[in-house]
Amino acid sequence: MSKVEPRVLKGFRDHLPAKMVPRQQMLGAIERTFSRFGFLPLMTPALEYLEVLTGKYGEEGDSLLYRFKDHGDRDVGLRYDLTVPLARVVAMYPEITLPFRRWQIAPVWRAENPARGRFREFVQCDGDIVGSPDMNADAEVVQLACELLRALGVERFAVRINNRKVLSGLMRRIGVAEGAAEAGVLRTIDNLPKIGEDEAARLLREENGLGAEPVRQVFDFLAIRGEPLEVLGRAGSLFEDGSIGQKGVSELKEVFEISAAVGLGGELELDFSIARGLNYYTGTIYEAFLGSLPGYGAVMGGGRYDGLIGVFKGQEIPGVGISLGIDRLLEGLVELKLLEERARVARVLVTVFGPATAAYSARAAQALRAGGIACELFPAYAKVGKQFRHAERAGQRWVVVCGADEQAKGAVAVKDLETGKQEEVALDALLAYLAERVGP
Amino acid sequence: MSKVEPRVLKGFRDHLPAKMVPRQQMLGAIERTFSRFGFLPLMTPALEYLEVLTGKYGEEGDSLLYRFKDHGDRDVGLRYDLTVPLARVVAMYPEITLPFRRWQIAPVWRAENPARGRFREFVQCDGDIVGSPDMNADAEVVQLACELLRALGVERFAVRINNRKVLSGLMRRIGVAEGAAEAGVLRTIDNLPKIGEDEAARLLREENGLGAEPVRQVFDFLAIRGEPLEVLGRAGSLFEDGSIGQKGVSELKEVFEISAAVGLGGELELDFSIARGLNYYTGTIYEAFLGSLPGYGAVMGGGRYDGLIGVFKGQEIPGVGISLGIDRLLEGLVELKLLEERARVARVLVTVFGPATAAYSARAAQALRAGGIACELFPAYAKVGKQFRHAERAGQRWVVVCGADEQAKGAVAVKDLETGKQEEVALDALLAYLAERVGP
Repeated sequence: MSKVEPRVLKGFRDHLPAKMVPRQQMLGAIERTFSRFGFLPLMTPALEYLEVLTGKYGEEGDSLLYRFKDHGDRDVGLRYDLTVPLARVVAMYPEITLPFRRWQIAPVWRAENPARGRFREFVQCDGDIVGSPDMNADAEVVQLACELLRALGVERFAVRINNRKVLSGLMRRIGVAEGAAEAGVLRTIDNLPKIGEDEAARLLREENGLGAEPVRQVFDFLAIRGEPLEVLGRAGSLFEDGSIGQKGVSELKEVFEISAAVGLGGELELDFSIARGLNYYTGTIYEAFLGSLPGYGAVMGGGRYDGLIGVFKGQEIPGVGISLGIDRLLEGLVELKLLEERARVARVLVTVFGPATAAYSARAAQALRAGGIACELFPAYAKVGKQFRHAERAGQRWVVVCGADEQAKGAVAVKDLETGKQEEVALDALLAYLAERVGP
Repeated sequence: MSKVEPRVLKGFRDHLPAKMVPRQQMLGAIERTFSRFGFLPLMTPALEYLEVLTGKYGEEGDSLLYRFKDHGDRDVGLRYDLTVPLARVVAMYPEITLPFRRWQIAPVWRAENPARGRFREFVQCDGDIVGSPDMNADAEVVQLACELLRALGVERFAVRINNRKVLSGLMRRIGVAEGAAEAGVLRTIDNLPKIGEDEAARLLREENGLGAEPVRQVFDFLAIRGEPLEVLGRAGSLFEDGSIGQKGVSELKEVFEISAAVGLGGELELDFSIARGLNYYTGTIYEAFLGSLPGYGAVMGGGRYDGLIGVFKGQEIPGVGISLGIDRLLEGLVELKLLEERARVARVLVTVFGPATAAYSARAAQALRAGGIACELFPAYAKVGKQFRHAERAGQRWVVVCGADEQAKGAVAVKDLETGKQEEVALDALLAYLAERVGP
């Protein structure tokens, strides 16, 4: 084999153990929370028929699809998100009956221009409830968002909730038509935190064609804050009976009422400026933020999309879901010191010096593992200094030295790298000795 | 969006919840075992520069690579296994110091002709120790194989162990040269369980060019059975001092001696007929079988490959590893009734009838979840019959009915679908009531 320069593809990255260890901890907590809420796991292929993917993500999305011809000359594409595959699955299998709730954690691929924090392969984590038009599903997903954050140790967070129908009501009131015109205004609103009010006002006038008075009305509306049910009482008066705006207000009321019953209060904010970038939302929308990291973007987002899932079935199927930004969330949790980037799963290293004592070392490691203590057995015959340096680099605290002298006495020497203290312990007392110290 | 027929690409498949639930249970047990052995998690991209992949898997492998040009006109390919990416990573990052042990569970893609049980996307699970030439690493991986099976509840299993050097020694003895000739004979030996002795004998004569006497010697050697250390004593006498065969015998002795010290006895078999299909093995090789399913193929396999990992570094780096066939293993565990294919994670369903009682239902679900009982809250306003049918289909046992009558009394009605018994329980006693019944 000829030597090849080892490099990773532009826009892609390796996740080395220091990042993977906290990531696995995080994913474990997420999976357990999904299970507690009765969400079922689903896995779909990375490759799909191209026609399954195209036309679902808009023109830009289509252009970012990784596509090629497979060995059978079929047009295929790499998965772009987890929602379209979910829609295909719901349409394909009669054994899936509605309502259906599933989670999926999997990489997706988009040929974006790489930028800081933007990659061409990233892991999505989605939870969705498909087949229910009712607001208790939306409240359930909002509650799931809160419980996911709590399961990750986040105490201070905010879920900002809005409803697309309310924004549509606002659009009708200021004379913006359904469809492209409304989508344009919503895109500008969605970008507000990034571009600021002045630039947003300019865009609303110049790009979206709004007059000065409608622009003022938009900003007044987006700035409304207060106790959600009280604000919603007032907002209701802004929309006519039977209008889409009023429908949105009553949906929001229902979501906040159910949430209040499960003890969600201050964590939930009514925020009319939440718009979400994607076109397909039709009702409740929300984004979750880490309260102790102001200015840090949303770590989760989602909402109701009643027109999307049905595309493969030829009939509308309502859906509501949540999507976690795995990488952003992980970075945030590390910044909050709720997780630690460290390439270590075992805090104990068992030394090995040579063939004559290798079996004895293996017995020491096995005694610990059988008792539930993770340990690394040094996998080579090496000098003691090298093995201690290995332990230090890995951040291991205890080194169990199994030399010929120790073997002769049926003992081991346990060195605590933090205190520098070393004690001789009988082999059959090793588990109890370390169980007391290592902890769970 | 125009309607598209929902279908999955030829050779690919969806993993629906009934398969995913036991699969997640299995993967959880596997991950915990890797951690107990100090293996670190690693994740690499699905796409690699094509030159990273080509030339590593032989001509057939190269032809099965999914390859295309990306948006930047780079030649790229989908990952074909997890070993080549590991080799690239070890060569690329100075923070990875040897010896290094990692696990990775990820899909790989091969454009094989689909056949029963053979797919173009399948999940590999690899654990490897890189950077050690010593036999305690091999013994550690054999022990890991045993502990993985035990963690999955398998009580009866066999790990059949051999060493490529022993087979090379046999080849030298019967006059088969290193390289292509030896590889050809080993392929025939590897296929023995599939093709039988008669066909293998024919191939050894006609394809591999062996005479009748060497063929007899091969079969005699492969048939050697017995207590490993006793057999290895005898086998040693077959090879000259300093020969490759003798080196293989002494390596095997060391692996069996260390394994005996950690209590592995009857599970480990010395089996000279284990050859492993891949070219790159250079020492210890082994395959693991489920003892209660005779005739079922190997569920794990692996060995030592001292020439493979160094390809990106320009210097040899020894390695030894294990690879689990996730799908085969899952099927085997289901057949042994150690896992159950069922689309259920929550055994409790909480009903919801309408907006007036939705908040009350949410409170009941939350009380259970807060107490660690997984439950599904019906995510839509529906008639009671529909919700009971949903619970029955999902295999849920308890239905918590939260109607207006129950709400008025601050209670719920809990129906046990197995016994048919229904009891009224105060809402604040629900958790204790079900905790007693549902179990962990």
